[in-house]
Amino acid sequence: MRDPINPTDETARALVRQLLADVRFAALGVLHPETQAPYVGRVGLVWDGAAALTLVSTLSTHTQALLANPACSVLVGEPGDKGDPLTHPRLTLTAVAGQVDKAAHKAAWLKAVPKSKLYYDFSDFVMFRLMPTAIDLNGGFGKAFRLSPGEI
Amino acid sequence: MRDPINPTDETARALVRQLLADVRFAALGVLHPETQAPYVGRVGLVWDGAAALTLVSTLSTHTQALLANPACSVLVGEPGDKGDPLTHPRLTLTAVAGQVDKAAHKAAWLKAVPKSKLYYDFSDFVMFRLMPTAIDLNGGFGKAFRLSPGEI
Repeated sequence: MRDPINPTDETARALVRQLLADVRFAALGVLHPETQAPYVGRVGLVWDGAAALTLVSTLSTHTQALLANPACSVLVGEPGDKGDPLTHPRLTLTAVAGQVDKAAHKAAWLKAVPKSKLYYDFSDFVMFRLMPTAIDLNGGFGKAFRLSPGEI
Repeated sequence: MRDPINPTDETARALVRQLLADVRFAALGVLHPETQAPYVGRVGLVWDGAAALTLVSTLSTHTQALLANPACSVLVGEPGDKGDPLTHPRLTLTAVAGQVDKAAHKAAWLKAVPKSKLYYDFSDFVMFRLMPTAIDLNGGFGKAFRLSPGEI
């Protein structure tokens, strides 16, 4: 089988930076806390320059999963309404989640996601910082790259 | 902690059916074949009335993952461009994947996803059918439901 991963170049790095700068929500993959099977939910997500912040409710399965096991993955980059969605760039972060004090990130979060001021302070909402360990960029067919966090 | 899951009603069932009828792509969560950590990728996806079909390349990490371990999860339902993305309905399928003969599903797939005729017959593309074991509907804040596949 041929290796589908291309050598990382500046175009790939720039695309990763753009996808991360633009992200406001994403698909979060975790291990279900009871079955240990994969489980994917939608979460609000903002990139802080080195890691992803997510604001989640403790009532959700994905939050209970992160509290039990911090290994996670995030799919970033939404297709538009036109064309084959699989030609639109997206990336997969492999990450490890750690809970952080949401009060310390409130100003930055609300600047990026102003509508979440309605629930930011709710007591069941907590914040995790997802530290990436690998970044798989898929810029469309034949445009796969694998980057380390230090490369972006 | 209060139970965030509402009793299933006809409105919830109808919303699940609509989300599944409309799906053309989704976020697929799997266990990475080397690390066993969660891994999320974007895939083309079509609902056939009882299960989800996905057409994937064997060159991708998520396909290698499904070949090694059929436990998976799919996030279905894309937010529009306006409003808080977390108020838009989506659902999480928990599923088990089995490889199927893509030739047998070609007409139905191409009717739903005509643009994929460009690569449907490529030898590295294979098809899996994802049999759901549970359906978590999130219709927006306070609108969480949990359905069995038989309920829709």
